[in-house]
Amino acid sequence: MLTTAGLFVLSSSGFKENAMQEKPTAGIVYLVPVPVAEGAAHTISPEVTEQTLHITHYFVENLRTARRFLKLLHPSINIDSLGFSEIDKHSGADIELFKKWLGEGHKIGIMSESGCPGVADPGSELVAVAHAMEASVVPLVGPSSILLALMASGFNGQSFCFRGYLPVKEPQRSKSLKDFEVVSIKEKQTQIFIETPYRNNLFLEDILKNCNNTTKVCIAQNITAPDAYIKTRTAANWKKDKPLLSKVPTVFLLLG
Amino acid sequence: MLTTAGLFVLSSSGFKENAMQEKPTAGIVYLVPVPVAEGAAHTISPEVTEQTLHITHYFVENLRTARRFLKLLHPSINIDSLGFSEIDKHSGADIELFKKWLGEGHKIGIMSESGCPGVADPGSELVAVAHAMEASVVPLVGPSSILLALMASGFNGQSFCFRGYLPVKEPQRSKSLKDFEVVSIKEKQTQIFIETPYRNNLFLEDILKNCNNTTKVCIAQNITAPDAYIKTRTAANWKKDKPLLSKVPTVFLLLG
Repeated sequence: MLTTAGLFVLSSSGFKENAMQEKPTAGIVYLVPVPVAEGAAHTISPEVTEQTLHITHYFVENLRTARRFLKLLHPSINIDSLGFSEIDKHSGADIELFKKWLGEGHKIGIMSESGCPGVADPGSELVAVAHAMEASVVPLVGPSSILLALMASGFNGQSFCFRGYLPVKEPQRSKSLKDFEVVSIKEKQTQIFIETPYRNNLFLEDILKNCNNTTKVCIAQNITAPDAYIKTRTAANWKKDKPLLSKVPTVFLLLG
Repeated sequence: MLTTAGLFVLSSSGFKENAMQEKPTAGIVYLVPVPVAEGAAHTISPEVTEQTLHITHYFVENLRTARRFLKLLHPSINIDSLGFSEIDKHSGADIELFKKWLGEGHKIGIMSESGCPGVADPGSELVAVAHAMEASVVPLVGPSSILLALMASGFNGQSFCFRGYLPVKEPQRSKSLKDFEVVSIKEKQTQIFIETPYRNNLFLEDILKNCNNTTKVCIAQNITAPDAYIKTRTAANWKKDKPLLSKVPTVFLLLG
């Protein structure tokens, strides 16, 4: 996890600054998690606080969130001394700039808007470039609503599959749900989904309409927030007592 | 995340202690992560330190590891005042004791030997019981080598599948690898595996023997340790320069 780039290097004539030009060394890429609930800074590991003291360049999903988070961790930080590049929703990250920064030996942080970069969020395309350049990649510990939901579901954690979003249109949507339920039964495999918050109630309806009564369904909302809602019931029991879900980030899990 | 059990409850006659006997309320279950590398306490979120101040009962995979971790977090903790039950490798957890403790309104921590309980580790059977008893389940944030390996792999984090251990025997082992490679190509889905450390080199051999040269393979060893080794290359490139893997916890990831 060490690089000599940009550091003082001991030579026969004493310390010499910026050995980088003479002996190019790739920088280091840090995957920097941020809270998944408003103000939940207590879910961020101390190593994030430590490492962000030394990271000088960032690729971020959202500039405002990223700056606010760094200010929260380090109130006296000089934000303007850092390099930022926003990952564009449509065109992706500026790969050439990333390669340039990495080639110059910088410590580069990747930050998504919520949770762990690269997991149901942008970042992985940059990490792939870092590996191609043989750079060190350091994942830091922080909250992932997918992993936390899995832990809290009581479902199989020896075999699980994150499927992202279901197709929005029918009949593909119902078919997907039914197919994944079959896989879950056959492989004893936990199926994990996310949904756009305004469709949460529709998603629950679709699960209850398409899945067996005996299939277990976990709804995990607002994880790590004081009003977190995490419940596992059979589809039959959810049908009897159907909650009105808030339009907040939600993970749905199935085990057939 | 609140329970009235064991708390002071406001009644018409003022505060009244221990409403529990009159109005039974289930306790709370906390999923308590521990470090995945020796001494990596800086990967544990502050909420773990906070919540373990109040947890009085524990179900643990390994009694010695659990006690040592709690001592590390809280040097002045009175370990003997806490209740511990070890989850037996063969017969599983003492479910009746768990139900009793939960029914009595205790705060119960579940701890595995390494990483997040319930994810490739014991714990989920207890969480399932907690949901059946309508208890609150609170997942705390900490390291998961599976999630960290996924973040650091540069592979697809929009669709991924954790498959646990491959079958040990042939021809099932080779067939599984080939089948999962096909799924990975078809679904653009990251495939994640773990292996018993003494079989690490054999596992890499098997991947290189059975998978396409263009399939990308990430090897993630000793995550969060100072000597962590995380590298992604194509199978062809691994063949050219095959490392001798240490007998340490390793996550293998494929993307076809």
